[in-house]
This record gives sequence, C-alpha cells and structure tokens, in this order.
Amino acid sequence: MKVESVDAFYLRMPEVRDIGDGSQDALLIRVRAGGFTGWGECEASPLPTIAALVAPISHSACKPVLDSVLGANLDGPADIGAIHRRVKESSLDLLQADHALSGIDIALWDLVGKRQGTPVWSFFGSENHSRVAYASSLFGEDPADTYERARSIRNGLFRAAKFGWGPIGRGSLAEDIAHVGAAREGLGPDQVLLVDTGCIFGHDVPRALALAPVLEDNHVWWWEEPFATGALREYAELAAKTRIPLAGGEGCHSADQARHVIEYGRVSFIQIDTGRIGGISAAREVAEYAKERGVQYVNHTFTSPLALSASLQPYADDPNSLFAEVPYSPSELALLIGQELPINDEGQVTAPPGPGLGMNIETSPLSPYLQEVEIRVDGRVLWESRGFEA
Amino acid sequence: MKVESVDAFYLRMPEVRDIGDGSQDALLIRVRAGGFTGWGECEASPLPTIAALVAPISHSACKPVLDSVLGANLDGPADIGAIHRRVKESSLDLLQADHALSGIDIALWDLVGKRQGTPVWSFFGSENHSRVAYASSLFGEDPADTYERARSIRNGLFRAAKFGWGPIGRGSLAEDIAHVGAAREGLGPDQVLLVDTGCIFGHDVPRALALAPVLEDNHVWWWEEPFATGALREYAELAAKTRIPLAGGEGCHSADQARHVIEYGRVSFIQIDTGRIGGISAAREVAEYAKERGVQYVNHTFTSPLALSASLQPYADDPNSLFAEVPYSPSELALLIGQELPINDEGQVTAPPGPGLGMNIETSPLSPYLQEVEIRVDGRVLWESRGFEA
Repeated sequence: MKVESVDAFYLRMPEVRDIGDGSQDALLIRVRAGGFTGWGECEASPLPTIAALVAPISHSACKPVLDSVLGANLDGPADIGAIHRRVKESSLDLLQADHALSGIDIALWDLVGKRQGTPVWSFFGSENHSRVAYASSLFGEDPADTYERARSIRNGLFRAAKFGWGPIGRGSLAEDIAHVGAAREGLGPDQVLLVDTGCIFGHDVPRALALAPVLEDNHVWWWEEPFATGALREYAELAAKTRIPLAGGEGCHSADQARHVIEYGRVSFIQIDTGRIGGISAAREVAEYAKERGVQYVNHTFTSPLALSASLQPYADDPNSLFAEVPYSPSELALLIGQELPINDEGQVTAPPGPGLGMNIETSPLSPYLQEVEIRVDGRVLWESRGFEA
Repeated sequence: MKVESVDAFYLRMPEVRDIGDGSQDALLIRVRAGGFTGWGECEASPLPTIAALVAPISHSACKPVLDSVLGANLDGPADIGAIHRRVKESSLDLLQADHALSGIDIALWDLVGKRQGTPVWSFFGSENHSRVAYASSLFGEDPADTYERARSIRNGLFRAAKFGWGPIGRGSLAEDIAHVGAAREGLGPDQVLLVDTGCIFGHDVPRALALAPVLEDNHVWWWEEPFATGALREYAELAAKTRIPLAGGEGCHSADQARHVIEYGRVSFIQIDTGRIGGISAAREVAEYAKERGVQYVNHTFTSPLALSASLQPYADDPNSLFAEVPYSPSELALLIGQELPINDEGQVTAPPGPGLGMNIETSPLSPYLQEVEIRVDGRVLWESRGFEA
C-alpha cells in the first residue's frame, strides 16, 4: 500500500497560560493508507510544524516534509525506515522537520501495527514490561502548594512523583530548599521523589552544585535537566560531583544527540520524547544504544494518552529501564486524545496490548479545540485546515 | 533605544531547482530602532522561519520569537546578548527558533554597529585579517563539467576552490575518482583543492574510508562533511584514519553543537553558518572556543554578500584561521543582497570596513523576488507580508 494522505490538526485550549504545562495545545497527525488510519502527535509548536510540511523547496536538502511521505510505499516497518531516512536527507536544512517527522513516524507505526493486528512494541520483541509510573507535576506556586500536590499524589495510585520547572532555581536557595522539602514531606519518606530543574542552570556548574546538597538531603532519586540539553561537558562534570543520578535528553531532536547525552554527558537516565526525536524509529535507536551502554531509558511525556502510548513502545522490551513518566494533571484537551492508561495496584503502567498504539481516537470531542490554519504564499494556498471528516 | 520593528522578507528565484544551491531563495530580516536599520539573513527555510516569529504560545518555553525581541532595549552589544538569551529560553521547544534568531541577531549587530559608526568586527578586537578566499562550487553534472568549472575558477582571482555535493558518493567509486581528478586537473597542481561530500556517508565509516585514497592522491586540503553533522564518533574515527584534515559543522544550530564537533568530532576546521547557528553572537562564541582549542574557524556561506559579510565578522580578529568560503556562482537574487566583496590580487577576502556589516541594502531591485506570505490562525492574521516600504 501507499501513503494516501497526511493531515495535521492544531488543537488548543481556549486559554494558554505562560506556565511550563506542555499539554495546553497539540499537533495531531493522521496518516491514511490502504483503508487504515494511523495517529501520531508532534510535541512541537504547531504552526511552524505545519509550515514545515508544506514549505516550498529551497534547495535539494531543504524540501517540504510531505514530499518525502505522500505516495511512499508502506507495507511494513522497513518502509517506515525508508520514509524516515528520506525526510532526514531531503529536509536536512529545514530545522523544524524533525518535530514534524516525529508525529508522522508515530502515525506510520500505528498504522502498520493496526494493519498487521499487532501492537507496535511487538515489532521490537515479545515482551512488554511494566514500569514504575511516576506522576509528573510542576512545582506549586509556593511551597504550601507544592506540598498539597505531593500529598494528593501520595493519596492516589502512584508510588513515585516528579516535580519540576516553575520557581525552582529562579529565586533564592532558601526557596528551593522549601519547595523540595515540601515535595518530600508531602510524598512521605518512602515514595520515589524526582526533581526536574528545567535547564535553569544553563552551563553554570557551580550554581547547580549549590542545589546538590538540597536534593541529596531529600533523597531525590534523579536530577533532571540541571543544564541546557547541549551542555554535555557540564553534565559530565556534575555527574562526577554528586551522588544523585542525572537525567536528561528530552530536548534531543535526533538519535545522534541522545547518543551524545549518554556518551559525553554521562547521564544515568536518558529521557526521550518520541514526539520530538523523530518518532518511534529514532526513539528505538536510542533505546537500543542505552541498553548497550547500561543506561536506563525513560519516556518524556507531558501531554496526551496517545503520546504516552507512543512513548512507551520503544523500550517495552527492556527489563532494566524501571520508570515511565505519566502526566499527572494534563489539560482537559490532552485527556481527550486517546484513552488514559491504567495505573495498577503496584503503581505501574504498561504499553497497551491493542494493535498499533492501542488507542482509539474519537474526533468529535476534539472539534471544539481545532484551530483553523491557512497559509498562502504568493496567492497559492499551501495549507488550509480541514475538519476531521475531510 | 528599543527594538521598534522586525520584518522578514521571503525572496525567491522564479524557478527553484532540485540541486544543492542554497542561494535560490532567501529570508531577509530588517530590524529598526532609534532611527537606525539593521539587516540580517537567515540561512533557513523561509516559511517555517516566519511561522516561528509569530507562532502562538504553546507554553512558557515555547513562545513566538518576536515576543522576546520587539520592544527590547538595544543600546549596545550587551543588549543583543540579553535578547539572544531570552529567545533561547522562551522559545526553547520551538525548534525553528534558532534559525529565526540567526537572522535577527545579525540584524541587531548590524544596527548597533551602524549606530556606533563602527564595523561589527571592531567589537571583537582591533584586527580585521584577510583570508584565503576559496571559490565554493558544486561538482558538475559530469567530470567534463567539473573540469570546466575548475578551469574557469583557476583563470580568475581565486587561488583555492571547493567542490561539493552533486554526484559525489552517490554513484560508483570510479565516478568519484573521475570527478575529484577533473577538479584537480582543472585547477592545476598548485591551487588549493577542498572537497565537500555533503553528509553523504551518513554514519558509515568504511564507505567513507574507501574515498580517502582518492582525496589523498589528489592533494585535497580538507574533507568536508563526510558524515551527518551529529556523527561525532564517526568523525573522530575517520580523523584518526586519514591524513586529510576534516571539516564540518555547518548544520549546527547552537554554539554547544559546534563545541561538540570540535571536542568530540575532532575536526581540524569548524565551519559555521552565521545564518543558522544563532547569528553573530553564537558564531563568536564558537570562534573563541576554536581559538582556544587550536582549531581553524571557517565561515559557511553559500548565499548573498550580506550573509558573507556577517559570516566573516565573528573571526576577523583571528590570525590563525586561514580560509573564507566565497560563493562562486550564486543566484542573481543572492547577488542583489548587498555588494560583492572584492577578492584582492593575492586571492584574499576581508570583512568590509564600513559600519555594521558594511553593506547597503537596496530594496527596489529585490521587490520582483518578494513572496507574499499570509498566515491565519482561527481567523486572526498572524502574518501578512508587507512590501519593503511599509
């Protein structure tokens, strides 16, 4: 069969706030081929990503992403690989292409899985391991708010939680101490506490080191994104100077970059957003490399159940990667994209058993969130958003 | 003074061909502040880059690029640094932002230089060194064509030439031998010959190694982009196995990535496109790091005189970086963007002595190439291209 259509749907909450919550909008991708439909999601700014699909050719290595996808053969995983490589080569100099490719690649895997009646993870091995699900939350506005969030997580099914972004690293060390302490107190002494400092220390190792004792005192299990994604030398330096394992990599938009975070940044946990790195194909490459290097792979997901399912597929066969990120309070929009994955009595989550990504996308509840997008260049309509039915 | 306006002009040749010539379109940036005007150019796919300027906010680290620029203080270089950092932080998850920032950052430097009546390079030191200009050309369609191109370069002012892309690495080794041999024969034995294989070997060291003797036999002075930009381990492996110095880095969209190409990829020449890496600010960081590491900095430029001037500024003070890339036959459009820099009798090129980038942008000859762009989201016009006069 051949790829017949690729559609992109820009969905958005009525109000998008200036906070670190990435679930306030979404770019959903739908691919159709041979009577089957696959869905994917880009973890990306929707408008430039749509523009990347249809941008007029600039030169032989800067072509619109759709040119490499529409009409391509799609009979199995090998064809997804060929499409993936063609996008990387033909859109080499179109920076946003990696984010666009991510959602398309996910949708292609979903479609091929559905056609073969088998979950995506089954292409990578026969096992589908459960993970310790950690509730992923932003820090509160003040320590009391952080405490309440932690308390509420503790009272639910989760046995692990991560707090991140918001005030951390932006005010005084005393404020950071109060927030991390409140998170630990709210969770109680036994739950796993993870902290995400959202790149706040840039390339500044001494400033990051000042926070290290605070995290150590509160038995934090990993320290996520102390630095900018590319600050590899700084990651490695900090890793040698703190007992807390480092985690990072969510900003990577290629498997190469993730390999660098592992090899040169010396993280203990490599965090991959399937919706950014180039989809399930690129994420799988990283999962294999991480296994080889004895590094734990973890998904990065802060959006929908569809994105969560996609992000669990690449490492489903790995028994040694223990954790999975599960958004704790995503937007009402994100919750409409697929079905929530259950957390079992042991606080674990597992990739769905159904074909493809095991998700059913109901489009009618999404329609109220759909943004009409129209792009014209020199009078030609390059993009016009259609409703889901088109 | 404050940044009053940022305009982007998408210019395009009537016909854009599917060849490696990046000068067939352009995204020109114009910044105005305090009665001064600065110009820059993004080496980027124009449409997604315009979209990045105005994309609706997705979350606190995914904001439209213009939000971090318009209204910002602009009294000197320190303010450019502050704008640069704000874009990097506020548009962290908007991948295309780095390419958009590049043109803006260049325009800001041009503007600040003009206001202070001094060339941009003077902010980095008192010296403005001349470089060996190398004529940058694509390989011909066949070896006879490559020979003619080399012959024509030899008969001009250049004493060095680079051939790249096109057929190299795509056919048989015999064809590669014929092309490289034709380039050497056309140039004669004494001129500097550089070869650019345009990432064609991906991550495949053995395939690249097969070409090494061909380059060695033809006295090639550097081997550019044997691999994908991120194939750092492969770069280092090849560097240890061939006598030919390696060059690379044009794909980098951050100073961090360029540092990795130097530190982990072990190139001898780091090639930076000021229009991609984040402008003159990011390029200057790389130039300083390269000097510290004893690696030669080289501009990557395949487009306009404006882009060439911008790309020569960051390393003007470095006496040890010997080369500069000069496009040999850019499109007629590219030649209208600024004034061609002279090649002196010794085959050298130098950054212009005038204020800012030392370029005068005449807009009326550009108007016929201007593409009207209109972007609407949910009925709101986010972008509407204006003519130059607006």
